[in-house]
Amino acid sequence: MPKVAVIMGSDSDYDVVKKGIGILKKFDVEYDIRIISAHRTPDAAHEFASKAYENGYEVIIAAAGKAAHLGGVLAAYTPLPVIGIPIKTSMMGGLDSLLSIVQMPKGVPVATVAVDGSENAALLAIQMMGLKYPELMQKMVDYKEQMKEEVQAKDRNFVE
Amino acid sequence: MPKVAVIMGSDSDYDVVKKGIGILKKFDVEYDIRIISAHRTPDAAHEFASKAYENGYEVIIAAAGKAAHLGGVLAAYTPLPVIGIPIKTSMMGGLDSLLSIVQMPKGVPVATVAVDGSENAALLAIQMMGLKYPELMQKMVDYKEQMKEEVQAKDRNFVE
Amino acid sequence: MPKVAVIMGSDSDYDVVKKGIGILKKFDVEYDIRIISAHRTPDAAHEFASKAYENGYEVIIAAAGKAAHLGGVLAAYTPLPVIGIPIKTSMMGGLDSLLSIVQMPKGVPVATVAVDGSENAALLAIQMMGLKYPELMQKMVDYKEQMKEEVQAKDRNFVE
Amino acid sequence: MPKVAVIMGSDSDYDVVKKGIGILKKFDVEYDIRIISAHRTPDAAHEFASKAYENGYEVIIAAAGKAAHLGGVLAAYTPLPVIGIPIKTSMMGGLDSLLSIVQMPKGVPVATVAVDGSENAALLAIQMMGLKYPELMQKMVDYKEQMKEEVQAKDRNFVE
Amino acid sequence: MPKVAVIMGSDSDYDVVKKGIGILKKFDVEYDIRIISAHRTPDAAHEFASKAYENGYEVIIAAAGKAAHLGGVLAAYTPLPVIGIPIKTSMMGGLDSLLSIVQMPKGVPVATVAVDGSENAALLAIQMMGLKYPELMQKMVDYKEQMKEEVQAKDRNFVE
Amino acid sequence: MPKVAVIMGSDSDYDVVKKGIGILKKFDVEYDIRIISAHRTPDAAHEFASKAYENGYEVIIAAAGKAAHLGGVLAAYTPLPVIGIPIKTSMMGGLDSLLSIVQMPKGVPVATVAVDGSENAALLAIQMMGLKYPELMQKMVDYKEQMKEEVQAKDRNFVE
Amino acid sequence: MPKVAVIMGSDSDYDVVKKGIGILKKFDVEYDIRIISAHRTPDAAHEFASKAYENGYEVIIAAAGKAAHLGGVLAAYTPLPVIGIPIKTSMMGGLDSLLSIVQMPKGVPVATVAVDGSENAALLAIQMMGLKYPELMQKMVDYKEQMKEEVQAKDRNFVE
Amino acid sequence: MPKVAVIMGSDSDYDVVKKGIGILKKFDVEYDIRIISAHRTPDAAHEFASKAYENGYEVIIAAAGKAAHLGGVLAAYTPLPVIGIPIKTSMMGGLDSLLSIVQMPKGVPVATVAVDGSENAALLAIQMMGLKYPELMQKMVDYKEQMKEEVQAKDRNFVE
Repeated sequence: MPKVAVIMGSDSDYDVVKKGIGILKKFDVEYDIRIISAHRTPDAAHEFASKAYENGYEVIIAAAGKAAHLGGVLAAYTPLPVIGIPIKTSMMGGLDSLLSIVQMPKGVPVATVAVDGSENAALLAIQMMGLKYPELMQKMVDYKEQMKEEVQAKDRNFVE
Repeated sequence: MPKVAVIMGSDSDYDVVKKGIGILKKFDVEYDIRIISAHRTPDAAHEFASKAYENGYEVIIAAAGKAAHLGGVLAAYTPLPVIGIPIKTSMMGGLDSLLSIVQMPKGVPVATVAVDGSENAALLAIQMMGLKYPELMQKMVDYKEQMKEEVQAKDRNFVE
Repeated sequence: MPKVAVIMGSDSDYDVVKKGIGILKKFDVEYDIRIISAHRTPDAAHEFASKAYENGYEVIIAAAGKAAHLGGVLAAYTPLPVIGIPIKTSMMGGLDSLLSIVQMPKGVPVATVAVDGSENAALLAIQMMGLKYPELMQKMVDYKEQMKEEVQAKDRNFVE
Repeated sequence: MPKVAVIMGSDSDYDVVKKGIGILKKFDVEYDIRIISAHRTPDAAHEFASKAYENGYEVIIAAAGKAAHLGGVLAAYTPLPVIGIPIKTSMMGGLDSLLSIVQMPKGVPVATVAVDGSENAALLAIQMMGLKYPELMQKMVDYKEQMKEEVQAKDRNFVE
Repeated sequence: MPKVAVIMGSDSDYDVVKKGIGILKKFDVEYDIRIISAHRTPDAAHEFASKAYENGYEVIIAAAGKAAHLGGVLAAYTPLPVIGIPIKTSMMGGLDSLLSIVQMPKGVPVATVAVDGSENAALLAIQMMGLKYPELMQKMVDYKEQMKEEVQAKDRNFVE
Repeated sequence: MPKVAVIMGSDSDYDVVKKGIGILKKFDVEYDIRIISAHRTPDAAHEFASKAYENGYEVIIAAAGKAAHLGGVLAAYTPLPVIGIPIKTSMMGGLDSLLSIVQMPKGVPVATVAVDGSENAALLAIQMMGLKYPELMQKMVDYKEQMKEEVQAKDRNFVE
Repeated sequence: MPKVAVIMGSDSDYDVVKKGIGILKKFDVEYDIRIISAHRTPDAAHEFASKAYENGYEVIIAAAGKAAHLGGVLAAYTPLPVIGIPIKTSMMGGLDSLLSIVQMPKGVPVATVAVDGSENAALLAIQMMGLKYPELMQKMVDYKEQMKEEVQAKDRNFVE
Repeated sequence: MPKVAVIMGSDSDYDVVKKGIGILKKFDVEYDIRIISAHRTPDAAHEFASKAYENGYEVIIAAAGKAAHLGGVLAAYTPLPVIGIPIKTSMMGGLDSLLSIVQMPKGVPVATVAVDGSENAALLAIQMMGLKYPELMQKMVDYKEQMKEEVQAKDRNFVE
């Protein structure tokens, strides 16, 4: 059973994160949500990430803003893939969050999605787990088909 | 046997890409390298990506610069996870490549690493595949241990 | 009879696009509006663009935001001129959309207008078609004259 | 006979511009090169642009850097399509040139290509003129085919 | 009698410009307001600027946004100092306007003030004219004294 | 006799500044060069600026880089117009210098020219002083004529 | 008794500054608030900073926006540590304020915190003074513990 | 005896850091240099920072580039003031490093200096410790005096 950890740097990030949670639910993926701050609860970050693999998590999604160190700090302690969601800020629309997450130095990647891109973080987690769980990959195929049909329907039915 | 596809938008990207290839070799991960341009050989992109899953690839790494559409175009045609490497350009150090890759709209993620971050792209691919292949995850654990020891040695032996 | 294709990556782009549609109507230029996503309906993009020339389109206008690949993807499949409208986003006012469209690599241009510049996209399409249809170029001359008069009237009548 | 005007704001822009000239030659498109500065020879800009249409030009390509007003100034005086090439500068890799050209206000578009993208400016001019001259459009089709084959050959022959 | 020309690229710029007008009034400086577009009424720009010196203007203030060519176009035609006010836009808070105005190439300066800085444009014009009109420079001295006292009063009276 | 003060924040700025000095010499404008640091010799800045007007200076040109406070600090102490030259840095090509100079708050303008634009700073100073000294304005008219002729000559004589 | 000076460039900065004042109160740190403008009351800046050390201040916090010279100007006149708070503006979310403060040239540092980061400025002042006053450092330790508990409580009690 | 810890994320940062070391030596401040990576040796970061206060350090200087988490990670574990040096990168001259360090969220400040500003980091550390050690503050006063004299000498002796 695939299981994802969704870590938020602050409960204020939940407005963004919940859209990705919706995706996880849609794909019947088990998940846990945690509030862990890289700077205010670093020991919790350390403990969680160090044991995430043995605790059965398969992917970690980390959402944080500004000097967004959460993804990198978790990635430092785990061999699991970590996906980073840069949260939008007023500093150039979140460029601070984006660069703080994506520009990880050699050795410790964080898979970065668009600013506020929590749905895509969830979909990416599903694609990763789909390598191991073929039924999940099949759901991904179906999801892409469904997206296509929705856009096609909008295209067919568009009235100025 | 895990297998990765490494796609370059241009052969000039190989200088960056080869560092990631070195990581794949170090982990004994099989890979194919292709030169496919989202704009100049779009049919090749279409064909490759559409069949990548059935052809046994598990992760696609796409390196491209400027208006770097390659990762997104491949991701459109496959349920597999796609990792994007933004290639450095003279436009603000590759911000054009980075934003063109990371800011994917809802539904089709591209897992983005740092500008010119080809080693991290390879490591991320290995982390993804490690979900399925425990021996690969174990190698990742070892790799992190080895990085730690290298830094520790530099720390111990540092002389001003 | 000149005919323009106006392609939107999402129906949410119509708020911007409709101002350009107003220009096309004013110039009595025939047009079709389509919703085609480079990432969610890539086959539709492929099919539309591959046949656009033989289907009698003369210019393609593509509006998209964020990692805005639509213009480039269409341009990959057609010899027709493609005009890209970057849609405003919260990432530095649409710099992501702009760079994703304008920084096309050598070989496949996308004629880029200002962020949210749908009127100018329409006017540019008309200028292109005016090379073939002198009556359209004459309308362009008249339009510029009319703009001039409107500004002159505002200048004459300005009261603090 | 299609004819293009290539205007440079300074003779120092020729290093970039000549690559686009190569494209025009390859397509047997007639062209004139002029050095006209929006700020130092504004009357020349006025005179050239005002008469460009009646003088038989079909497209104007304008290359300029920094506060790059040349394209906009020419476009103000002509109904012809104007293509702007932002020249790279040390200000964020040419972001000053790019924004000065692409962000044209409503009514007077400048079709903008990538920073230093002179080949694409030439190709775009050819696509525009191809609407009127089918043999030119056919050459464009052939050029795209040739690009494809070149990339395919590199793909086939790539050796690490 | 010192006289300033205040040129707006669009009547929508008046909301910003009027704050500078207030400064001119406070200093009893005569001024004319004009709406002249570099792109829509280029002949008016040409005519106005060419004759501004002989018509008795001493400083020209030009307010424009986006690809803000107005200041540069006026400066091309006059030996008078031209002050540029970049109007705020949604593109990074007006960085497009700022760079389009301030990055003027060698030979034709535009004295640039802050984005939306119309009061400072007026004060700068007064400082320039104060070189010739000592009573105006004295007013400037008094204005600075008054500003100082206002800040000092706020400092003294500040209550949390 | 017009007299200009040219203040450099550091002697390393002279490479840029000397090009503007060349312009001042060409126009036979008297000038003094000083090295005054807003941060390391703030008293010198205070003293110089406070007395600049009574000491017969008419314009102050201030060149500084990074957090370039020099122009603003001088402007705080004088009613004279202050022209700021942002010195290029490795931070986005001098965006730090530019914003530190141009974004002056209401009340104390600094007339900003392009990054490294020392010739334009000198020309702007001459335009300002030309308001008072008609022979200087005439030289400015001549200079613009000469620039025009130089560009025209390059235009006429250009050979690919 | 530790004492902090909190200097605002304008009374409009108080909305941001007051959050930091709350921190100072919480830690029972004595403070004075002043409104001093680097540009409008430069003599007050000079006088205040020159005597701050002998007047018993231990840290100076300076909040300013746009071309935010206040921190640097105060730092020029005092050996005390100066902390700069960049105030958010509409120019890329305060990038102008940030760069104007943080990019101080060699010799005169300003300790910069996040845009609008007044709480952190206060905490940083407390950490600095904690070097001298162990009871203050102990309070800092307690504060960090309290923050940790607050985040842990939110983590424990989080309900979707 | 004041003691500073200088932590580098990588030994390649030493080229920048050594200039700050020179300042510490000049002020006879004791220091230890360590190579600790937030991502590759997170346990070392944890251990070092957790004990830095009891081990007698007074200030921690952390130099790191790209997604520069080192300063924030250390600050999470210590009540001591942490100074961050953003290392220059090719991403907009180090904007990634700068934003990753300076934009720390509420509660855990990192005192940020200019990109590559290692001398200023050292001077800031000395100013902080000067609160406790008056002889160090006196040296700071002397250092500022010496800087002043150096600039004054350059000013006096400047020859074009």
